[in-house]
Amino acid sequence: MKTYTLHYWPSIPGRGEYVRLAFEYAKVPFADNSSNVNALQEHVMRSNKTGLPQHFAPPILEVKQEATNSSRFISQIPAILSYLAPRLDLTEEEKSIARAHVNQLTLTILDLSNEIHDVHHPIASSLTYEEQQEESKRRAKFFREVRLPKFFGYFESVLAENRAGSGANLFGSSMTTADLTLFQVVDGLRFAYPNLLSRLEAENKCKHVFGLHEKIGNTEPIASYVKSDRRRSYSMGLFRHYPELDEPAM
Amino acid sequence: MKTYTLHYWPSIPGRGEYVRLAFEYAKVPFADNSSNVNALQEHVMRSNKTGLPQHFAPPILEVKQEATNSSRFISQIPAILSYLAPRLDLTEEEKSIARAHVNQLTLTILDLSNEIHDVHHPIASSLTYEEQQEESKRRAKFFREVRLPKFFGYFESVLAENRAGSGANLFGSSMTTADLTLFQVVDGLRFAYPNLLSRLEAENKCKHVFGLHEKIGNTEPIASYVKSDRRRSYSMGLFRHYPELDEPAM
Repeated sequence: MKTYTLHYWPSIPGRGEYVRLAFEYAKVPFADNSSNVNALQEHVMRSNKTGLPQHFAPPILEVKQEATNSSRFISQIPAILSYLAPRLDLTEEEKSIARAHVNQLTLTILDLSNEIHDVHHPIASSLTYEEQQEESKRRAKFFREVRLPKFFGYFESVLAENRAGSGANLFGSSMTTADLTLFQVVDGLRFAYPNLLSRLEAENKCKHVFGLHEKIGNTEPIASYVKSDRRRSYSMGLFRHYPELDEPAM
Repeated sequence: MKTYTLHYWPSIPGRGEYVRLAFEYAKVPFADNSSNVNALQEHVMRSNKTGLPQHFAPPILEVKQEATNSSRFISQIPAILSYLAPRLDLTEEEKSIARAHVNQLTLTILDLSNEIHDVHHPIASSLTYEEQQEESKRRAKFFREVRLPKFFGYFESVLAENRAGSGANLFGSSMTTADLTLFQVVDGLRFAYPNLLSRLEAENKCKHVFGLHEKIGNTEPIASYVKSDRRRSYSMGLFRHYPELDEPAM
């Protein structure tokens, strides 16, 4: 018997949300420890005295074997999701080539997630947005005009051409961590860049991408989750709404 | 019987090198297709007519089943390495928690690799370095003073505290994709930031990190590989030497 605890910063959905969605979708209970920043920093600290790898940054998943009362800790979102996927029935099959495809897609979506962060922090994560605002505005223009259309075009094509699917899944014919991760990125982008997203949706070139977001958000169990108080609000985390980085309203 | 082909851009080691090192270390033959950019772009193109996921960017690994003469393609370095690791005996054990730890470490090293790229391309990968040189200089200062010391301090601590190791491996007591990936990042950084790396080495705070690089580079089969003409030279790829981004010589 294993129990899971997600360790992450308080208040924001942030990068912890990619892990939360997997548990929520699978209806597998987990403890969400975002209340104790000191404990989190203990886990992130360089020396953890276990002889197992320390952690560079949260989120961190704790996997506790109840029988022995011992815990193992995993960080890095793709490592966490790839560990959890077969346990939560969120990967197409156990065959590793299929898992590699799901992995590939999840990693590409998380690359977009990182680029979204870097638009508001193009110089250094240790500076505030205001201290790098000019560079941020310059990067945002390329993000809106080149990068986001390139990523969305890619996901659209993957969804449309998935031989096993009906346009609703990125790989195979059932939900994977890739689908849930893309749901969250589109959801966060709708908050951060409402005008850009509205225009892209109206252009109708990425209907499967927007369709996936709408369908997952409106279907149980995610529909209930996003309305619950377990779902954190966007604010000043990974997804930030700075009107000057968005395009003007249509 | 499977055969492997790595598809990547010609001339540079770049991100393809992380995959090459795994094959070279394991002494598993692979075809290195960097000669045909058109073929590569075919694979990267959005529509690949297979119904399997298309590819956002190279490197791309082709896995061909000789019996059926059919190929599958995987992109995203961490997905490729995590697929190959058990096949090349480059992961500690098949148990997935151990693979998750190796995954976690490899991903963190590849995060550093991405930051190294972004120092010379902080605004847009579609601009030249010269078109974003001012922002690049500003970012380089934070890279040299904050980010690189933070990453190296983390890897040093992981190496020093690995309970199964002697300071020579990041996880467990044998070579994994994490070790080979860290070797390549240190190697590329020695080319790109020679003054910074010399100072860090002289300070002796990261002796396990530098020791890992030296040991892997001087031990077979990598020692022979790096001297062979299969090893590409650094130039204007992922690792670039711009003296103005390095610190002054000691």
